[in-house]
Amino acid sequence: MRTFMDENFLLSTSTAEELYHQAAENLPIIDYHCHINPREIAEDRKFENISQVWLDGDHYKWRLMRAGGVEEDKITGNAPDREKFRAFASVMPKLIGNPIYHWSHLELKRGFGITKPLNPETADEIYDCCNEILQDYSARTLMEKFHVQAICTTDGPLDDLAWHKKIAEDSAMKIQVLPAFRPDVGINIEKDGFAEYIQKLSEVTGQNIHTAEDAAEALCQRIDYFAGQGCICADHGLDYCMYEKPDFQRANQAFSMAMDGVRPPKDAGDAYKTLVTTACAKKYAKKNWVMQIHFGCLRNVNKTQFALLGPDTGYDAVNSRSGVEKLGPLLNGFAENGGLPKMILYSLNPGDNTALATIMACFQGGGTVGKIQQGSAWWFNDHRFGMRSQLTELAANGVLGCFVGMLTDSRSFLSYTRHEYFRRVLCELVGEWVESGQYPRDMEYLKQLIRDLSYENTRRFFGFDIN
Amino acid sequence: MRTFMDENFLLSTSTAEELYHQAAENLPIIDYHCHINPREIAEDRKFENISQVWLDGDHYKWRLMRAGGVEEDKITGNAPDREKFRAFASVMPKLIGNPIYHWSHLELKRGFGITKPLNPETADEIYDCCNEILQDYSARTLMEKFHVQAICTTDGPLDDLAWHKKIAEDSAMKIQVLPAFRPDVGINIEKDGFAEYIQKLSEVTGQNIHTAEDAAEALCQRIDYFAGQGCICADHGLDYCMYEKPDFQRANQAFSMAMDGVRPPKDAGDAYKTLVTTACAKKYAKKNWVMQIHFGCLRNVNKTQFALLGPDTGYDAVNSRSGVEKLGPLLNGFAENGGLPKMILYSLNPGDNTALATIMACFQGGGTVGKIQQGSAWWFNDHRFGMRSQLTELAANGVLGCFVGMLTDSRSFLSYTRHEYFRRVLCELVGEWVESGQYPRDMEYLKQLIRDLSYENTRRFFGFDIN
Amino acid sequence: MRTFMDENFLLSTSTAEELYHQAAENLPIIDYHCHINPREIAEDRKFENISQVWLDGDHYKWRLMRAGGVEEDKITGNAPDREKFRAFASVMPKLIGNPIYHWSHLELKRGFGITKPLNPETADEIYDCCNEILQDYSARTLMEKFHVQAICTTDGPLDDLAWHKKIAEDSAMKIQVLPAFRPDVGINIEKDGFAEYIQKLSEVTGQNIHTAEDAAEALCQRIDYFAGQGCICADHGLDYCMYEKPDFQRANQAFSMAMDGVRPPKDAGDAYKTLVTTACAKKYAKKNWVMQIHFGCLRNVNKTQFALLGPDTGYDAVNSRSGVEKLGPLLNGFAENGGLPKMILYSLNPGDNTALATIMACFQGGGTVGKIQQGSAWWFNDHRFGMRSQLTELAANGVLGCFVGMLTDSRSFLSYTRHEYFRRVLCELVGEWVESGQYPRDMEYLKQLIRDLSYENTRRFFGFDIN
Repeated sequence: MRTFMDENFLLSTSTAEELYHQAAENLPIIDYHCHINPREIAEDRKFENISQVWLDGDHYKWRLMRAGGVEEDKITGNAPDREKFRAFASVMPKLIGNPIYHWSHLELKRGFGITKPLNPETADEIYDCCNEILQDYSARTLMEKFHVQAICTTDGPLDDLAWHKKIAEDSAMKIQVLPAFRPDVGINIEKDGFAEYIQKLSEVTGQNIHTAEDAAEALCQRIDYFAGQGCICADHGLDYCMYEKPDFQRANQAFSMAMDGVRPPKDAGDAYKTLVTTACAKKYAKKNWVMQIHFGCLRNVNKTQFALLGPDTGYDAVNSRSGVEKLGPLLNGFAENGGLPKMILYSLNPGDNTALATIMACFQGGGTVGKIQQGSAWWFNDHRFGMRSQLTELAANGVLGCFVGMLTDSRSFLSYTRHEYFRRVLCELVGEWVESGQYPRDMEYLKQLIRDLSYENTRRFFGFDIN
Repeated sequence: MRTFMDENFLLSTSTAEELYHQAAENLPIIDYHCHINPREIAEDRKFENISQVWLDGDHYKWRLMRAGGVEEDKITGNAPDREKFRAFASVMPKLIGNPIYHWSHLELKRGFGITKPLNPETADEIYDCCNEILQDYSARTLMEKFHVQAICTTDGPLDDLAWHKKIAEDSAMKIQVLPAFRPDVGINIEKDGFAEYIQKLSEVTGQNIHTAEDAAEALCQRIDYFAGQGCICADHGLDYCMYEKPDFQRANQAFSMAMDGVRPPKDAGDAYKTLVTTACAKKYAKKNWVMQIHFGCLRNVNKTQFALLGPDTGYDAVNSRSGVEKLGPLLNGFAENGGLPKMILYSLNPGDNTALATIMACFQGGGTVGKIQQGSAWWFNDHRFGMRSQLTELAANGVLGCFVGMLTDSRSFLSYTRHEYFRRVLCELVGEWVESGQYPRDMEYLKQLIRDLSYENTRRFFGFDIN
Repeated sequence: MRTFMDENFLLSTSTAEELYHQAAENLPIIDYHCHINPREIAEDRKFENISQVWLDGDHYKWRLMRAGGVEEDKITGNAPDREKFRAFASVMPKLIGNPIYHWSHLELKRGFGITKPLNPETADEIYDCCNEILQDYSARTLMEKFHVQAICTTDGPLDDLAWHKKIAEDSAMKIQVLPAFRPDVGINIEKDGFAEYIQKLSEVTGQNIHTAEDAAEALCQRIDYFAGQGCICADHGLDYCMYEKPDFQRANQAFSMAMDGVRPPKDAGDAYKTLVTTACAKKYAKKNWVMQIHFGCLRNVNKTQFALLGPDTGYDAVNSRSGVEKLGPLLNGFAENGGLPKMILYSLNPGDNTALATIMACFQGGGTVGKIQQGSAWWFNDHRFGMRSQLTELAANGVLGCFVGMLTDSRSFLSYTRHEYFRRVLCELVGEWVESGQYPRDMEYLKQLIRDLSYENTRRFFGFDIN
């Protein structure tokens, strides 16, 4: 019997233990997709208390608190930070089987040396202890504590990347903080604010934008700008994967409607989206960037709460109409229009895993190792079981040894333990395969495999320039 | 190695054993959703033989007998009861991996003390033995034997609940037998018999029904009537989850067509269904009832056999077009129309589990513990593997500790062993998590968790008034 | 800890070991669905080197080589065979968790006695060793080595089956080589070459084909011809499962359009497909053939590569729009038009497994044991995890004991080890169930079960006439 979250947490075999401790544990972290605010790094933000780091903006935890019966006042409301922490602690013991239970305890352990389970009895003691230790930390020292070597934040095309510049110019800063290009607002033609956004894009680029092609051109100009700041990847977030055959007229029609404040018909809107996304893909390919596509998320599902609290407050869900059937045509469109960039594809719907793995396999080739990647288990799937499923299905239909592995997708400076979690799950799975005779026990090779999947493949695939 | 179905059946760890035997085993049963005929309880029906209890009306078993090559005469036909039992016994050994294999042997063991596996060699001996023992039992004494404390049957709005009244007035009856409100026939506007049903509803309520609103109003009147008989929950069975924006005109158009014997267009029919279902939800919220929605069942798939044998004869299937993408809009509609009731949501399509768990999580809140529940693995998913999947996915995306757990969904007085089955699967899973170090081994807390998921959460959530 | 791929490979319990070695290991093989070229058997082809047997035409391996970064020249290009083998060997170690890793090593072991893992260091040695041994083998002696008793190839209706006749007349040939009827090209009305194909069908049958009924009639004539050559089964490959209500006019309209080189509208095309498929089903039922339907494959997804390399080159994928919702209506159509034949149904989308299992269960009956079969895990699902899923879900919703089990679906004379792989996975699963107390440890019965699922059920279900 294992003790809860001891040093061999999740390492169910001695092979897994050896692989983790000798190959994975001490590797640095490259976090190629996150939502950290670069300003907090530039200013080296400090935190008053653990609620600020843990509960402010963490809509994963908010959802669980709501389901656990906590009143909104103690979630997004005005209750004191200690009260909010107590409320979260009251739900924790019921979270058996939830990744938050593991992530939170890993963060308490690695960040603060706390090994007691968090529950109503220990809440105050842990709150005080964390807060005291937090006085010695800042955004940067937390990142250093977790051996972070490089991160990519998520940034809109209009961003002047001033905070990124400031960080880059700061000779005391050892960690690479690169921007990542996320043009969603200029692509989601059916959403509120599109016309205003295009107007601003026109101002920022000094370019007139009258057509879909103009919009694409302006975005491409911003891609150049981002590249100038060291950017090496982009991310597209799609409610659903769309594809319409190239049709400039239809795309421009949709564009004109949207600029006049009229929502275009879905197929015309999709023609616009396809056109602009394809133009971006061509640009990424030319620049040798990595293009990420996250699709299949239903946003702001609860309309009443969206009206009250706005986006990113815990009201998103898996889209059962993720559009995975359009993925093949979309990638064909990319290929026929100047070549495919290196890609990482994520669907939020775990039922897409096999379709996604087999479709993307049709676009591998050209001598690039693992050119099209299936992204790590994403968001609602980012738990031990979901990670094992993604790894198992990717291995079954692709080449696991080429996989670029984990990212945090997080807003918090404590979330780097998710890399530890991934590495443990990976070593657990590989250990099981080896000890049951499904793969030779060649430990030197296996350690290299673990290093590749934990760190090296990411470095090589993105082309991080790390000494 | 474990002996087949010994006292530690499915309890794969010593933690599981301790949890089951010390926390779950002796708890009473609240079966909040079943299809028991209340008349059989009121009259305290006795059974001549085990075929009557086991094979009459049990379409789960019929399907398997057909697949196993048994002729229809020995399934739904006129073959003698002993022949039917022998035919079932002939298929049993081939049912390795099927829940019926486990359920049946659990029922033989708990109901009759039989531990021999049922097969062609043991069929006659077991048949005779069961029948002898059955002479000492009746509907009520079987329920007592399984420590049943309360059940909710499934009843149509037209029902006068006379049998329920009779049971309630019977001072010798210690077990609560409550009705549950199931208004499907008044909602399924596209099905045969709708117009006649609305006509009867008009007669029973003494209300003229000329519009969709009238129909909703009449159903709400029946909800009051059911409440007067102690009813605390409702159940809606939907072939697919539907949603159309509120449109009284379109709904009334559909209603008029249906009353004239014309099948309305699907979208108009869905407008009617949405309107009436939403009105019911509002009423349930006001009464603090629990609203169950079962969706995603394809009924009477084999048309030839439906013509011969009618409904509920083993010809239903999983609907791959379950409509889970309409669930968010439907719940928004409820919320905007007077508030969400407490709910339990079930999809028959296991591929919906993650979408369902993440959509319902968007509607939690308001300080109610586990207000929106993902129902226990349903019907075709109600096996060890399906239960583990549902528990694992619910835990990963929600708060397992708030789950209301198991129900039988059965027509038989022997099916209460399904609660035992669920409790064993639950203890097995929790035991695995604990012994692999994924949750602290705090046995006092864990026993409380098991009691909550096996019994207490149900009592509290529904508000059963049990001394 | 197990040694990689030793004699107890995958046999995780002693029950599994006993079942495999005492019941499964030495059974002969009936491979009821493959893509072996009968000419190679008739001429008893010999192979110069292992690349010819292993890499020529094996698009499963090609996909993985592409993902692993191998240039196309060493995959489908003109690189020397040894170079291609080295390129494949360079990817092998990264294929942890992929069935090709297991299949390939099983083939090296059983075919050539090689137990070293294949990797860049061992590539040349293994290449030379295999080639030397290959000099002693031919198509037929390879089949004998694997104890193959009978196979069904896959043959178009126009085929004169000359090679099959030659084999049947060859008294030295002990292995039954039967044709299987695959009429896809005459049914896929929307694909290129349809009109020319119908023209040839007209010539071969000497029948004028002016209507959909004529086409169906001509195909039925070819079914008779195939039956004359010992054929006992057919296979229909569908991109998606289609169904349109019987509509001769619409079907004939589609047919006329297609014969004029115009692609008919999808629903009219589906009316044609439904009509012809239903006519074939009626004929199969009359002849007591087994009808296989493989559906849910997206073919030639990468258009650029399809233009370069043609079909069957590693660019197919899972169709997330598999049409499983049309399966019930299609089978009803069969039943109403002369009765259902014995069937084996496969969907390439593993998300269809539960829907498929529950729909087909609605069509069991009439006293035939396991009349409608869920096919073994197919193509992209044909790995340990996929096989376990298929077996588990089939067991949970059907009668596992009636299952007809494995096939290779392969073009290669070395692939018969896939039967060994299946038998090991099966014994592993059954062993787990037995040792955890989920099924009685009645070894005599269990061995019979394993024999049934490995061999006997296939023999009986198809009616193979084997001494």
